[in-house]
Amino acid sequence: MIRMNSHYKKLKASYLFSDIAKRVTAFQENNPGTPVIRLGIGDVTRALPQACVQALHKAVDEMSMDQSFKGYGPEQGYAFLREAIAANDFQSRGCAIDPDEIFVSDGAKCDTGNFQELFATDIRVAIPDPVYPVYLDTNIMAGRTGEFLEGRYQGIVYLDSTKENGFVPSIPAQSVDLIYLCYPNNPTGATATRSQLQEWVDYARREKALILFDAAYEAFITDPDIPHSIYEIPGAREVAVEFRSFSKTAGFTGTRCAFTVVPKDCRVFDENGDSYFLHGLWNRRHSTKFNGVSYPIQKAAEAVYSPEGKIQVKELIKGYLENAAIIRKAMAELGFDCVGGDNSPYIWVDGRSDSWEFFDRLLKAGVVCTPGAGFGRCGEGYIRISAFNSKEQVEAAMGRIAKALS
Amino acid sequence: MIRMNSHYKKLKASYLFSDIAKRVTAFQENNPGTPVIRLGIGDVTRALPQACVQALHKAVDEMSMDQSFKGYGPEQGYAFLREAIAANDFQSRGCAIDPDEIFVSDGAKCDTGNFQELFATDIRVAIPDPVYPVYLDTNIMAGRTGEFLEGRYQGIVYLDSTKENGFVPSIPAQSVDLIYLCYPNNPTGATATRSQLQEWVDYARREKALILFDAAYEAFITDPDIPHSIYEIPGAREVAVEFRSFSKTAGFTGTRCAFTVVPKDCRVFDENGDSYFLHGLWNRRHSTKFNGVSYPIQKAAEAVYSPEGKIQVKELIKGYLENAAIIRKAMAELGFDCVGGDNSPYIWVDGRSDSWEFFDRLLKAGVVCTPGAGFGRCGEGYIRISAFNSKEQVEAAMGRIAKALS
Repeated sequence: MIRMNSHYKKLKASYLFSDIAKRVTAFQENNPGTPVIRLGIGDVTRALPQACVQALHKAVDEMSMDQSFKGYGPEQGYAFLREAIAANDFQSRGCAIDPDEIFVSDGAKCDTGNFQELFATDIRVAIPDPVYPVYLDTNIMAGRTGEFLEGRYQGIVYLDSTKENGFVPSIPAQSVDLIYLCYPNNPTGATATRSQLQEWVDYARREKALILFDAAYEAFITDPDIPHSIYEIPGAREVAVEFRSFSKTAGFTGTRCAFTVVPKDCRVFDENGDSYFLHGLWNRRHSTKFNGVSYPIQKAAEAVYSPEGKIQVKELIKGYLENAAIIRKAMAELGFDCVGGDNSPYIWVDGRSDSWEFFDRLLKAGVVCTPGAGFGRCGEGYIRISAFNSKEQVEAAMGRIAKALS
Repeated sequence: MIRMNSHYKKLKASYLFSDIAKRVTAFQENNPGTPVIRLGIGDVTRALPQACVQALHKAVDEMSMDQSFKGYGPEQGYAFLREAIAANDFQSRGCAIDPDEIFVSDGAKCDTGNFQELFATDIRVAIPDPVYPVYLDTNIMAGRTGEFLEGRYQGIVYLDSTKENGFVPSIPAQSVDLIYLCYPNNPTGATATRSQLQEWVDYARREKALILFDAAYEAFITDPDIPHSIYEIPGAREVAVEFRSFSKTAGFTGTRCAFTVVPKDCRVFDENGDSYFLHGLWNRRHSTKFNGVSYPIQKAAEAVYSPEGKIQVKELIKGYLENAAIIRKAMAELGFDCVGGDNSPYIWVDGRSDSWEFFDRLLKAGVVCTPGAGFGRCGEGYIRISAFNSKEQVEAAMGRIAKALS
């Protein structure tokens, strides 16, 4: 008899986005003349940078002729892309990351979800609240949690991100082995300072813990004092893995390319305390269960680092950040407490009411956001507004909200 | 202290392809005037079909404008592709498979590797020998095996594929819960008849077992009596998942697109014997750890089913099968027993000697193949020759081998 992985039974069905969709559909049926403006899901809306488009066309032409056709590439990614990433995203910021410490993949969702496979099931895992749900869900599937009680899974150390701590939790009282961090944060948009990250790195070195650092939104950082990479923190090479993505940086949500950095100094331990290099373990996992990213897509990602690509990506980010500023200003003028939006595409708004109630008020005005409760218990009472849309739509949305709420 | 998944320690380092590469490099250094001909790795060499190239260019243009830009698509794949697959690959052969039973992914390696996550760790797993190493390696990583003794992992039921059983193993004496099958087989090229597959389906229904059927090479089937899909077998919808790929069908090894069929009738069981639908479990896994295939790549895959695409793919396959016939004929004329090559791109040759010894003899002639021992203990004594190359190169390779061995 084929028996299931019973940990799947502990998963709460993810009704968040289907609930949103249902309410939006109902609104549209009752208000056919008012098309909703979507500032909910964190999905980019603007065209791929032209440098990427040109690189894609060129690579497709290569694939169309026997002489230049590409079959299987290296599972870890082509050297041309790994070298461009190492040089531009890390070495240029003083981070000593080598190309062969970069693993190219088709998405940070896959990487952040898969990475936990490398660890024992009985380690203690710390996960921020609120945060991107993939970290928690994949640990539930792997059997690292108990039952769901009072809105939380037994066995997980939740790192509460609240107004009181500026949405940047500090080291927990309990000892932990694996720590997920996400800065700029999804959903709060909060960022961590150099000294806050240094505390985590020092903790991890002291406790032989490991940090999984999700920096998918680093391109939105404008404040020169905020680190873009965990490797700007001394000692991080020994205790931190970093996840990056082209999704939000260069509009690749539908094109699919990301990468994970696994420094050769990171170690994990067996039950006897003997140490093993994490790089070799991830390399084994990656090359056994993955076959590399599409060649044309890797060429498109490489083009992000060309002189024109860099200018075009900056323009793209600048546009979304201008939207974020419009949203934050509008919500603040209406008297709401907000974080995010300055170094991130998300604005986290204290709705001073139930998340879903506030969601419904905005929907009545014709604007779709995301209820904060969908990201964890500490998200209750908040909503996330995304800057991913055109300036016109964002301005129209803020006009609608101001009219409805003031 | 961050502890590792200690099951990784049981993995044998995969030296096969690096060993091959080392020997090839050494040969090239000693014989600079004789470039080797590669019939080793199962990687296609011919250009993408023009229909796919055109679809790619068109989709890239869509991505270059805000109005037609595509962000995140459905994790399971776009309806246009799922519908084309269901209609052309299944319904046209009388298999009742619906579009929403198709999960589009970036590769069958990922899917065949990831699917075992849905099951308990203490199920009994049956794996053919020889076979594509991913099935075994991913079960080792998941902790479903004991130690490695005398060339085999404790706890796995190996399905020996030998000359005696025509390389198609029958139902094992022990009871098993999860069965991997791969037809046309990699590496032997052997195919299973309708009645052989019916036996497995009947067994799975009787025992409440599940079959994971890898049909990555189905496009090479020429014999009208050989089933292309497990769903041609009555009852299979209740007990079988099927993996397919565009890699070998349409030359997508470097382009990356595949799919998995999970019928809504398949059930798995919990420890109380209560049943759950496999479709919902896989959907949860797929949407939690995967974010869909690149939009342009899905458009390219859709083009495989266009009238021009179908003709071009047939031509591609026909070319490789002509190579396979040349190889099989040449090896048979030299007196070697061969299987495969008629309904598959691989020819499995009994070298009547140690796999590596025979590999070295062919390398001395300037031809690279794959030693059969790399695919399992039953592969010892055999080599795999791949038809993936140009006709000129294949003919030249057979000339070299004939000269060296006759």
